[in-house]
Amino acid sequence: MTDQKMISELVIPNTTKIVLLLIDGLGGAPMHAGGLTELETARTPNLDALAADSICGLHDPIARGITPGSGPSHLALFGYDPLQCQVGRGVLESLGIGFDLQADDVAARGNFCTVDENGLITDRRAGRIPTEKGIELINLLRPVTLPDVEVSLEPVKDYRFVLVLRGEGLSGPLTETDPQQLGVAPLPVRALSPEAERTAALLNEWISRAREILADLHPANMVTLRGLDKNPGLPSMEEIYGLRAAAIATYPMYRGVAKLVCMEVLPTGETIEEEVDTLKAHWADYDFFFLHIKKTDSAGEDGNFEQKVTIIEHVYEIVVPAILQLEPDVVVVTGDHSTPALLRSHSWHPLPILLYSRHCRADAVSEFSERACARGALGRFPATDIMPLAMANALRLTKFGA
Amino acid sequence: MTDQKMISELVIPNTTKIVLLLIDGLGGAPMHAGGLTELETARTPNLDALAADSICGLHDPIARGITPGSGPSHLALFGYDPLQCQVGRGVLESLGIGFDLQADDVAARGNFCTVDENGLITDRRAGRIPTEKGIELINLLRPVTLPDVEVSLEPVKDYRFVLVLRGEGLSGPLTETDPQQLGVAPLPVRALSPEAERTAALLNEWISRAREILADLHPANMVTLRGLDKNPGLPSMEEIYGLRAAAIATYPMYRGVAKLVCMEVLPTGETIEEEVDTLKAHWADYDFFFLHIKKTDSAGEDGNFEQKVTIIEHVYEIVVPAILQLEPDVVVVTGDHSTPALLRSHSWHPLPILLYSRHCRADAVSEFSERACARGALGRFPATDIMPLAMANALRLTKFGA
Repeated sequence: MTDQKMISELVIPNTTKIVLLLIDGLGGAPMHAGGLTELETARTPNLDALAADSICGLHDPIARGITPGSGPSHLALFGYDPLQCQVGRGVLESLGIGFDLQADDVAARGNFCTVDENGLITDRRAGRIPTEKGIELINLLRPVTLPDVEVSLEPVKDYRFVLVLRGEGLSGPLTETDPQQLGVAPLPVRALSPEAERTAALLNEWISRAREILADLHPANMVTLRGLDKNPGLPSMEEIYGLRAAAIATYPMYRGVAKLVCMEVLPTGETIEEEVDTLKAHWADYDFFFLHIKKTDSAGEDGNFEQKVTIIEHVYEIVVPAILQLEPDVVVVTGDHSTPALLRSHSWHPLPILLYSRHCRADAVSEFSERACARGALGRFPATDIMPLAMANALRLTKFGA
Repeated sequence: MTDQKMISELVIPNTTKIVLLLIDGLGGAPMHAGGLTELETARTPNLDALAADSICGLHDPIARGITPGSGPSHLALFGYDPLQCQVGRGVLESLGIGFDLQADDVAARGNFCTVDENGLITDRRAGRIPTEKGIELINLLRPVTLPDVEVSLEPVKDYRFVLVLRGEGLSGPLTETDPQQLGVAPLPVRALSPEAERTAALLNEWISRAREILADLHPANMVTLRGLDKNPGLPSMEEIYGLRAAAIATYPMYRGVAKLVCMEVLPTGETIEEEVDTLKAHWADYDFFFLHIKKTDSAGEDGNFEQKVTIIEHVYEIVVPAILQLEPDVVVVTGDHSTPALLRSHSWHPLPILLYSRHCRADAVSEFSERACARGALGRFPATDIMPLAMANALRLTKFGA
């Protein structure tokens, strides 16, 4: 991958515009040998036409064979080395819900869960209690204080919340308490360095107080904490690429990862149509737009092949023409990871990518699918190369060396 | 990329011969969507025939999306990591004109330029004064001396010259004085490390003396200095690859980069035909020939699509049969960077490459072009892998490990 410092030294001022259309969980797989993937099944004539004028390929968000989490894959798409920039989900979620996370805060993503009389987990999501119930429980936990630190607690959605500690001398790294299986007790938070001992002790005290308060409130009678981390303070997209970058995303997680690289997160609605309206409304104000579509991934996670096909068709029918009408200089269409309905989960399969610009030197690919993109001139490459390619095609990088 | 030290440990003695035919700025782009590139337009039957017996691919001289300068891209082609081996143009140009640059010399590439009464640049190339005028001005500047260092000044071509300081304790890194725009004054040389302070002061004194002498000699009434650097002392091609390497190139820049890796730079003429004659005359004396063709790049920089096509056709008609007649063991045909007439400049687009040898295991590509090579069995790969591939095909590398 290309070093971000090197890229930042090559950046030249420009007014060109780049759109990254990110279809979450885009990559798929056939349900049976010899079959077609979701993307191959979908009728996407406008995208195939765009592919014919584009350069195509397959990218690996992290590395061949590695199934990406959403945080690392998005960082890679934004050009940040996902192995160097590991960020806990607590940080992503708290940024995502708009919490004003500061440099030395420690954030955790929390789940309400159910434990039996022996303290062993029987449901990791407390029967997926609704958001209103979650808010009610959060309000019961708010009075819990800890010595010398400020405790913030915010509901996210359903059984999810974030917990943030603020104060002097807090530190990671810390282990998670969710054992990721049933029939065992939640784990204690453990410090992975001596500096983190006090923080671990504070978190364990908070958990123990929370447990007392929740004890009789079955099914949400316990909590687990995951992704405990500090904000890593990554350099911004503007510092690295000289881009005024904006994010349009309906889910907190993706707004969080966009904030992590200091994108402006635009207010938008819940639907794809509203996201497109947001793009149009702010077109003049930014150079780079990260437009995130979530529903494809959800259909894949549900194992619903047909629904994923339908959503892909809908996305392309609505979103692609709307983007092209704005006449961007560079359009990148890809996903952050594969979510084949076959596997009902994220997978390691590489992602098809299409890069369109006036200067892209189109290859012979004229269909946007996993198999067709495997023959593209971009080859198979790490996702961290996408931003340098987009910047080059937007004529925003000068040459390297004399 | 493969480490040069590792390669050097695998080298075995051999008498096989490798030719690297380097067509400067070879890669192109269509002038309009759906069109052909320069190379796709050119009729190159003998090269297409060679492609059918070769293995093909696309390479990136530096990295995906990065537009290479000529220095780094040639170093990559010779197998040197271009990010590790950054060399100032002053070094390349002074080596290129045959100046005997020593280990501790500091070299700069100079331009005569025009400034107005306020000292602001109005022409960065002083109206492109001819070489004879440049020599005349250099002779006026030769008397300028500096305390405790030897000053050498050599004309290059037109408005270009090189300045070399020799003496104890000279050091870089140093900033350039050419602001790369009009309407502003040349910048002073600045030291980028404490050791370089004295060198910066000496260079600024030289500039100030030069300015006094040139004051009334409009249009060449000022100078700028670029690419100020020391010779990095790279290991030679012979040390790494065990190759007796020779360079045939008409331009100082490319002779310079060849000298940097200790190739023998053969005297040759100005035309492609003379370069071919030089190759034939020295065929018995070397194992590796770097044959550099410049005119394709110049046509691209001029935005002259048709001329670039014509030159490509001419090169292939003359050069390829002449090379094959010598029966080399390995022939590599590629470019150092793309220079699409569309962009009138170097670009980030990857380069088509063809590698022919008796042992290459030819792929299905039977046309030498950007799009055809995208389907080649070499895939898309970094230029630093070219030398290991050429060495392997010349049966000059033993196996790695037991």
